[in-house]
Formats: sequence, C-alpha cells, structure tokens
Amino acid sequence: MTVFRTECRVRYVETDCAGIVHYASFFHYFEVGRMEMWRELGLPYFEQLPIVETYCEYKAPARFDDLLVIESWVAELRSKGFKIGHRVLRKEDGGLLVQGHTSFVTVDKDRRPVEVFDEFRRAFEGHLEDGRA
Amino acid sequence: MTVFRTECRVRYVETDCAGIVHYASFFHYFEVGRMEMWRELGLPYFEQLPIVETYCEYKAPARFDDLLVIESWVAELRSKGFKIGHRVLRKEDGGLLVQGHTSFVTVDKDRRPVEVFDEFRRAFEGHLEDGRA
Amino acid sequence: MTVFRTECRVRYVETDCAGIVHYASFFHYFEVGRMEMWRELGLPYFEQLPIVETYCEYKAPARFDDLLVIESWVAELRSKGFKIGHRVLRKEDGGLLVQGHTSFVTVDKDRRPVEVFDEFRRAFEGHLEDGRA
Amino acid sequence: MTVFRTECRVRYVETDCAGIVHYASFFHYFEVGRMEMWRELGLPYFEQLPIVETYCEYKAPARFDDLLVIESWVAELRSKGFKIGHRVLRKEDGGLLVQGHTSFVTVDKDRRPVEVFDEFRRAFEGHLEDGRA
Repeated sequence: MTVFRTECRVRYVETDCAGIVHYASFFHYFEVGRMEMWRELGLPYFEQLPIVETYCEYKAPARFDDLLVIESWVAELRSKGFKIGHRVLRKEDGGLLVQGHTSFVTVDKDRRPVEVFDEFRRAFEGHLEDGRA
Repeated sequence: MTVFRTECRVRYVETDCAGIVHYASFFHYFEVGRMEMWRELGLPYFEQLPIVETYCEYKAPARFDDLLVIESWVAELRSKGFKIGHRVLRKEDGGLLVQGHTSFVTVDKDRRPVEVFDEFRRAFEGHLEDGRA
Repeated sequence: MTVFRTECRVRYVETDCAGIVHYASFFHYFEVGRMEMWRELGLPYFEQLPIVETYCEYKAPARFDDLLVIESWVAELRSKGFKIGHRVLRKEDGGLLVQGHTSFVTVDKDRRPVEVFDEFRRAFEGHLEDGRA
Repeated sequence: MTVFRTECRVRYVETDCAGIVHYASFFHYFEVGRMEMWRELGLPYFEQLPIVETYCEYKAPARFDDLLVIESWVAELRSKGFKIGHRVLRKEDGGLLVQGHTSFVTVDKDRRPVEVFDEFRRAFEGHLEDGRA
C-alpha cells in the first residue's frame, strides 16, 4: 500500500471559539490530500465523482499555525467505486490528530453507477493494501 | 424519540465548482441543528464538548438557495458520552439529502472522560428512541 | 431609500480562536442579505454578476450565537453596474457591528461590461437614496 | 518597501457554483499572506489585533487548483495602527487577480487604542515604502 503525503498549515479561519481547529475543517484537509494524491497519480481531478460517505474520528485537537501532515491512500477498490483513507498528523511530534475515509462512486453522465474507469483502476494498481487492483 | 427540526437556506458560499453544496458544508448544517436542539432543551451550549467521531452518508445533492430541513435527535446515551443523529432534507419535496451522526464525550477540565453531566441526562430523558435515559 | 432586512444567527464555525466572528465571515452575511433583497425584489439571482470590489469596516465584534440583523440597500446605480450597501447589527441591542459595500458590474456572455439590465433597473426604481433610477 | 511572498493552491471548497473562487475566499488568502509575513519578521501573531477595515478589488477570477502568489507588505504605519497591502497573482502567468488592504489597530487589554507596539515598529523598519518607521 502506498501512502501519499502532503503538508498544510492550520489557518486562523479554520479554528473556532473553542480555540482549536473546527471539526469540519478536517474534511477540507482530507480534500487537499486527495487532490495531491491524484496529481501524483496523474489522474484527472476526481472531485466531480459523487461522494457517498465520509467519516472522521478525532484523536487530538489541532491548533492555529500547526503544521500538519495529511496522509491519503486507496483503502478499497470496489467494482463501481473506491474508498480513500485519510490520516492527519501534527508534523512537530508525529501525533495522530484524526483518521477517516471518504467513499466515491463512479457514475456516467446521468449519474448512474458504472464500473470504475480504467484510468483510475490502472493508476491504483500497485498502490492497494494487498496489491490487488 | 423526539426529532428536533430547524430550517436553513443554502448559501452561495456553501456550493462548489461542481455546482452543488460542498460535502463538508453538511457538517455546518449538522452543527446548526444541534445548536437549535440544545436551545430547545434548555441546555448550555455543548460544542465545547469534544467530538470523537462524525459520519455523513450522501443520498442526493443540495443546490444553491435550496431550503433545507435539518433534523437532530439523541441517537444514543452512553455512560460517558452520547451520539446525536442527523438528517438533512430538501423542504420543497421532502427528499432526503444526507444522514449522519456525531458522537461526543463528556470531559472534565483536564479533558478526561467523565459521566455524562446530570443536566444533559435530565434534558435527554423522554427524548430517546426507547424512552431510556 | 429602501433598506432590506434579514436575520441570521452566528454559527460556531464562523468564529475563530480569538473567540469572535472571523472577519471574513461578514462577507458571507453580506451575501445572505443580498440574496434576500433580490428575492424581495423578484430578481433572478445576481451572484453570477462579477463583483468588482468589496469593503468592510469593523465597529464591534460579533460572538457565537448572536442574532444578527443584516441590512442591504442599493447605494448607487451606475450605467454599467451598481453598488449595494451593507450593515450588520446585533439584534439584542441594535449595536452596529460592521458596515460596508459591494460593487457589481453587469456583463454580457463574454464578460464585457454592458448597460445595467432592464429588470435590475426597474427593480431598483423607487428604492434608491434619492429616488433616481 | 519589502514585498513578502507566499504560495497557496486554490482548494475545491474555496470555489462556488459560478465555477470560480468565491469572493470571500480571498480574505483567507490575505490572512495566509500576513501570517507568513509575520513569521518572516519574527513577530508574534498579530491576528488578535483588531481589524478595523478591509478592502478587496477584483481584477480576474481564480479557479480550482490555480497556484497563487500572495503578496503582502506594510502599506502604512500610523501612530496607533498600521495597514497591510495585499495582492494575489496567478503564478502560471503572473496575472493580477485581486488587490486590497487590511487595517489594524493596536490595543491594550481593555481594547483601547494604544501606540503601535515597539516590536512591530522595529520589525517594520526598513520595510516601509518610504523607508520611514
């Protein structure tokens, strides 16, 4: 399994009046991680693909100006979709802040589920947990 | 089980360049729903309570200017936390857009998990799915 | 001059770690005010019209859960655009929080400036500061 | 005058359903630029300082995944505050997207305006347009 990594610094606007990063901001970080992963895989941007579910588990808070490491990987390749895994860590000490995933479905122009596009399947080959594609 | 409802209109800024509401915006709607639920229950604001996990399942897209109905309920009361259920529907036709949940843990000043505060336990009584509290 | 008013409650996500509403959130409130103004005027949504400048002057901070009154009006009608004025007040005591404006230009399909569309000009009639349209 | 530069890539969430970057997102970029400028100047973070006004003039739209160059500089040093200038350019062709400014006031613990703190005055020396400090 290949883990793709990118860095990102917490912005002031991403915090809230509890003094920590707002819980929804992590979904923005997940998205940043996916974009960079897609870029590395040479894939066209996939955000147009419908998201069917997303999940985040919070382990420790992030704070303003923290430097974050965003990890992304192909957690699962299904016949008509795939699941991307996410972790966000604090760079300074490697502390795990959150982990989660996002599931996508591949659709045709009428938004009906179709087989995962060949370019995605080929790009994912060799990057899956068990080597399958 | 009591379902608390509040309405909210999709803002322009909440959409993205796919022409629909951005997937992370629904966590803002969930938060709006929780706030109004807390207000109705006469509870102090609970957002200071740490969120331990959140989940969202996407059924249909929301669009700019859609009037939304946000539903919130106490899905589970645990010894040291609770889970709030969420649904967002399009008001016009009642179509279900997303459903999800958010889990909280009750903590003391040193952020150590403690028994759910009495005021929460009392406020939740009679609003749980099976009547338990 | 007609002042259009709408209400809006400060969301948790709109605050930042200084404990107050983030300065950029007010541009979201301005947008909410414009949308409701357009709705009252029976106009098609105008956000597609390019914004050429925006300005905000901060008088007092807003806080989580404050109920806000957003005021919007046609501050100026030019040959190829117009300026909308904005004020945001705290409902509880009427305190002025911010004031500002947003200027739009009317454009054709190739985004070249053109005369203000008739439907806008007609809608604005009678709502301008000096009665002109 | 010293111009401080930092780069930033447009996120999906920062766009809106007009297909371009939402007008309020530029204030987030301005903030990112100021943070990096403060870091380079060795200053404590200044976002706690009250913002008294902000302005943005839009020249051309930014789009998803554009790489941006954010420019920041000390535009004016007053007795009890200062003004930071901002420009955002598209890195690919150097095209100017927006320009603006943000004015801050220095305050004491009771939020009363006071003389600009010495550490700011010293940090700004030599970076002002006319060399004054």
